[in-house]
Amino acid sequence: MKINIDSKIIEVNEPTTILDIFNKNNIDSNKFIAKLGDELLPFEAKLKKDCSLSLIEIDENIIKSSNNYLAKLILEASVLKCFAGTEVSIPKKDINKEEASVVFYSKERIKKEELTTTKDQFKQLIKEGINFELNYNQNLNNYYKNELLNSRLDFNLVDYPFVFINDSNLIVRYPIFKESFNIREIEIINFSGEYYNNDASETMLQKISFVVANDKKQLSKIIKSIEDKRLRDHRYINENLEIFNIDPVIGLGLPFWLPNGAILKQEIKKYLKEKEFEYRFIQIESPVLGSKLLYEKSGHWNHYRENMFTPIELPDNETLVLRPMNCPHHVSVYKSKIRSYRDLPLRFAEHAIQHRYEFSGSLTGLERVRAMELTDSHIFVTPSQLKDEFINCYKLIVEVLQQFNIKIKYLSLSMRDPNDKENYYNNDEMWNNAEKQLEGMLNELNLKYEKMVGEAAFYGPKLDIQVETALGHEITVSTIQLDFLLPERFDLEFINSEGNPEKPIMIHRGLIGTYERFVAILLEQTMGVLPLWCSPVQVSIIPVSEKYNDFARQVESKLHDKKIRCFISDRDDRLNNKIRNAITKKTPYIIVLGQKELENNLVTYRTYGNEEQIQISIDEFVSKISKEYENRE
Amino acid sequence: MKINIDSKIIEVNEPTTILDIFNKNNIDSNKFIAKLGDELLPFEAKLKKDCSLSLIEIDENIIKSSNNYLAKLILEASVLKCFAGTEVSIPKKDINKEEASVVFYSKERIKKEELTTTKDQFKQLIKEGINFELNYNQNLNNYYKNELLNSRLDFNLVDYPFVFINDSNLIVRYPIFKESFNIREIEIINFSGEYYNNDASETMLQKISFVVANDKKQLSKIIKSIEDKRLRDHRYINENLEIFNIDPVIGLGLPFWLPNGAILKQEIKKYLKEKEFEYRFIQIESPVLGSKLLYEKSGHWNHYRENMFTPIELPDNETLVLRPMNCPHHVSVYKSKIRSYRDLPLRFAEHAIQHRYEFSGSLTGLERVRAMELTDSHIFVTPSQLKDEFINCYKLIVEVLQQFNIKIKYLSLSMRDPNDKENYYNNDEMWNNAEKQLEGMLNELNLKYEKMVGEAAFYGPKLDIQVETALGHEITVSTIQLDFLLPERFDLEFINSEGNPEKPIMIHRGLIGTYERFVAILLEQTMGVLPLWCSPVQVSIIPVSEKYNDFARQVESKLHDKKIRCFISDRDDRLNNKIRNAITKKTPYIIVLGQKELENNLVTYRTYGNEEQIQISIDEFVSKISKEYENRE
Repeated sequence: MKINIDSKIIEVNEPTTILDIFNKNNIDSNKFIAKLGDELLPFEAKLKKDCSLSLIEIDENIIKSSNNYLAKLILEASVLKCFAGTEVSIPKKDINKEEASVVFYSKERIKKEELTTTKDQFKQLIKEGINFELNYNQNLNNYYKNELLNSRLDFNLVDYPFVFINDSNLIVRYPIFKESFNIREIEIINFSGEYYNNDASETMLQKISFVVANDKKQLSKIIKSIEDKRLRDHRYINENLEIFNIDPVIGLGLPFWLPNGAILKQEIKKYLKEKEFEYRFIQIESPVLGSKLLYEKSGHWNHYRENMFTPIELPDNETLVLRPMNCPHHVSVYKSKIRSYRDLPLRFAEHAIQHRYEFSGSLTGLERVRAMELTDSHIFVTPSQLKDEFINCYKLIVEVLQQFNIKIKYLSLSMRDPNDKENYYNNDEMWNNAEKQLEGMLNELNLKYEKMVGEAAFYGPKLDIQVETALGHEITVSTIQLDFLLPERFDLEFINSEGNPEKPIMIHRGLIGTYERFVAILLEQTMGVLPLWCSPVQVSIIPVSEKYNDFARQVESKLHDKKIRCFISDRDDRLNNKIRNAITKKTPYIIVLGQKELENNLVTYRTYGNEEQIQISIDEFVSKISKEYENRE
Repeated sequence: MKINIDSKIIEVNEPTTILDIFNKNNIDSNKFIAKLGDELLPFEAKLKKDCSLSLIEIDENIIKSSNNYLAKLILEASVLKCFAGTEVSIPKKDINKEEASVVFYSKERIKKEELTTTKDQFKQLIKEGINFELNYNQNLNNYYKNELLNSRLDFNLVDYPFVFINDSNLIVRYPIFKESFNIREIEIINFSGEYYNNDASETMLQKISFVVANDKKQLSKIIKSIEDKRLRDHRYINENLEIFNIDPVIGLGLPFWLPNGAILKQEIKKYLKEKEFEYRFIQIESPVLGSKLLYEKSGHWNHYRENMFTPIELPDNETLVLRPMNCPHHVSVYKSKIRSYRDLPLRFAEHAIQHRYEFSGSLTGLERVRAMELTDSHIFVTPSQLKDEFINCYKLIVEVLQQFNIKIKYLSLSMRDPNDKENYYNNDEMWNNAEKQLEGMLNELNLKYEKMVGEAAFYGPKLDIQVETALGHEITVSTIQLDFLLPERFDLEFINSEGNPEKPIMIHRGLIGTYERFVAILLEQTMGVLPLWCSPVQVSIIPVSEKYNDFARQVESKLHDKKIRCFISDRDDRLNNKIRNAITKKTPYIIVLGQKELENNLVTYRTYGNEEQIQISIDEFVSKISKEYENRE
């Protein structure tokens, strides 16, 4: 049996445990663990077939995750003990260093109160001390039968070991560091229903989400940090601001922009298009569908099919797909007429709807969706224009991110993995040339960057602009990608100054990624306190009593004429309640209108986060706010 | 056998010719012809099964179409005579009073020049005199075999008669008035390839489009009128203005907005959204997909399935459809929270992409497409708000159409056909109430309208605002529809002032229909001469020689800063050519820059359609044009 470890091929007898392989090849099992695909393997896992492993250095996060994983196994054993007839679901692969969960099936629905006994059982087991000796007694009796029938678990490559805890034999799918296990405390932070496989036609399972710690103090710290994150989560902020909605009756992962969200999105779009006009981009609009043939030609069908929606077969023999990317569409516009060198650079921008299929379980609010609008552009340049064009894109991106106060964490120069001939277009010369040019430009611009091997697009290397969200996720918001491949695949040409056809280079530019994810980031970063220009409601108008409702409507009308978005709080409620409501909605300006204001044509206003109340004339207020709006202060 | 003629049922022996039926039932065959579905039947056609006919009065247009049809048969006979081994395609059902065509299959591709003999043959036959005696000798040997195999012709209901012309026996599918046949002249106006069934995987057939007349003078008049229409056709105007493109590699009926078109569309959109803000609509944005379940519930699946794209089956068991309408999505937003009477009217506006399946043969430029963006709105009102809301919608529509100089031809009050229980939701009380209210409002507003029975939507009656396009097509641009059905189907509620749940009424509002069709109308009406504010290029800047290119770029930069769209004509070309080019592109302003302008900071401009040249300072020009742009003059 051949095992490839970090590109070195070794020959072993089958089946072999990871530990055996490590020992025979002088790999220090105190320092490294083995990774197969996305999974970190226990040392006792037995490999059964040829496969490729990579070595990962053991660090504090891995130890924390391992502790969580062991706690999860103990909690599983506790659930199985407390509730007869219960079956647990196969442990999820993604192990989190902070939060963990147990998913199980129980014939009778378990109530939240009943979990107290489970927690007690957990603590009892810990107290008694767990013996984490592993065995190979493949008994899956404790596991959710339906799941095993559907056999989502791939045992072809690996035999996983088992651990026996409190009468249950549980499968182990993560490295165990039993000496480091120091968990003493547990708290359940959520208990909810979850369809098996996230499929509403399947059985409803139950899910316990929990955190663990080695003492009470650490436990409350972890709980507090999770609570903080919850408050910053855009889905939580959305509950007050009503930005988006996802309706399972319409479809999972297909967000609606509610009235407030549509304003926010459209204001951002207006700003971006103004900037694009300034930087000499030209807008186009293209259909959300494309023929399957097109994606076969572009290579997406080969490299990207899993993320594409199922094709649509039309009665008259066309086969269409919801596009997952816009490049082939922009290529079509390029090809719609003969291009001369005088026409280049051609900067097509489109804020384009696209669809990418993701498993329903990974969909998250606006952050991970199936339908999204990308702030996309494709620029066609002659080789000599590449550098100036790259700078133009980079400047635009930096200016736009600044407008939203979004800090760049670092620049990632994403290169291909030269050994991976499957996921990258196989033409070393093209790649070397593209990577060299991109790196050269970055050096010349004196930009600091980190080289990331294996992070390129299948068609070329790219500069990814990395950002850390308020929740600590690192993501790529903006990107500039070089592409020498698609111009070749689609036979793109321009007539050069000698009158001969020549191949343009394509640049793919993502300005702020998708509106969906960008708004998620923005909400989390601002906690929903948006700048005036893109706030859904810019002014809350509060008459001190119903007597002043007419006056309020007059003031609103003046502001509305200037396109200012107002909300009149004209219900019969206490003044303080009205003000508190406006603050909950994070309205930038709150104006209060009463007798004095009516008699003197005044407004009394305060801004969000300030207690100070200021009085100015209505007209002054209108022109002040109009100016701030116009200048996007 | 039972034949239903205009709702009167008569009993006849089978098979019976139309003429027999007419004679036995005292129907005057000099005055009427019979219509089956969309087809006018020859008097000699034999009915074979129970069916419903309607009677149509014979008029001049029908006589003209009949003449065209007979000429078509003669031309078919001529083609068959001139080119051995040729087969003709089954005559199309839609017979046009002006233009006709013959589609045929020939093993060897026929060249345009060879058609001269066909024309001669046609005239020869006419000269000799045609005997239009019909027979029932069902011999389809002359016909395109593949078509017959696919048997697109439905002979189940009707046996069509045949006519024998110059050795060919040809099927007759339109009424013949041989005494009126007075055609003497023919001209071929187009000769092109056409895939059988418009399907690129099928055989390429050839198509002769022709016109006929009774003398040479009339012939040139007809040709002139066709040429005029061709010049006004938005597809022709598009060749110069580059507004849209359709790329068969992407998909049929899926238009691209090219850079010029994207500007035009986005300017119109900006205007409409400003108006919607003024009229207190609020924007939302919703996904282009919806679950199949949703459309089953809304009734679209039942009433509208043929026009919907094939559903998409996702791997995790969801079934989604590209939405053909937006109502269910807006209902979802309505239902996303509890609504109070104080929230109504709720005016959701969305310029929303939707997809409707049409047979590829009927797709026409931007006029008939498969993907379209509708200027849609759904308004939820309490019963007492219905009238004011209707007026608000109507005023908005009238104001918007005026901005584009589009004249309303008439208002159509589109009612259900009370006998058609299949295509209209079956609830007479609901319909009577809705129709009465709508008619009452129109009367109260003193609006003139025409009642159109059988033109309602399946869910309710509507006011359709009818327009005649420059090409003489009558279409509905705007519409206001009442809907008491969907609020019931989807259990919509609001809490009334007594605190009890009550059902809102829904109004569907189409502002200017789809952008696609509206732009087609606008291009045809204006011949491409668009107002400044929505012109893709607003100013053509023409330096008199290359020496002034830098100066031109300075002037351009000043205008660009004010968001004015310019094109610099900086190629090495003669001044007059450059001016002619700008005129061909219908640019509103042309400015010429030379030595005098450079020295004195001037521009010399002319406006489209005016020879007069005016000199003003650059700054004056910038502020003049900015003002006109801003005010949409």
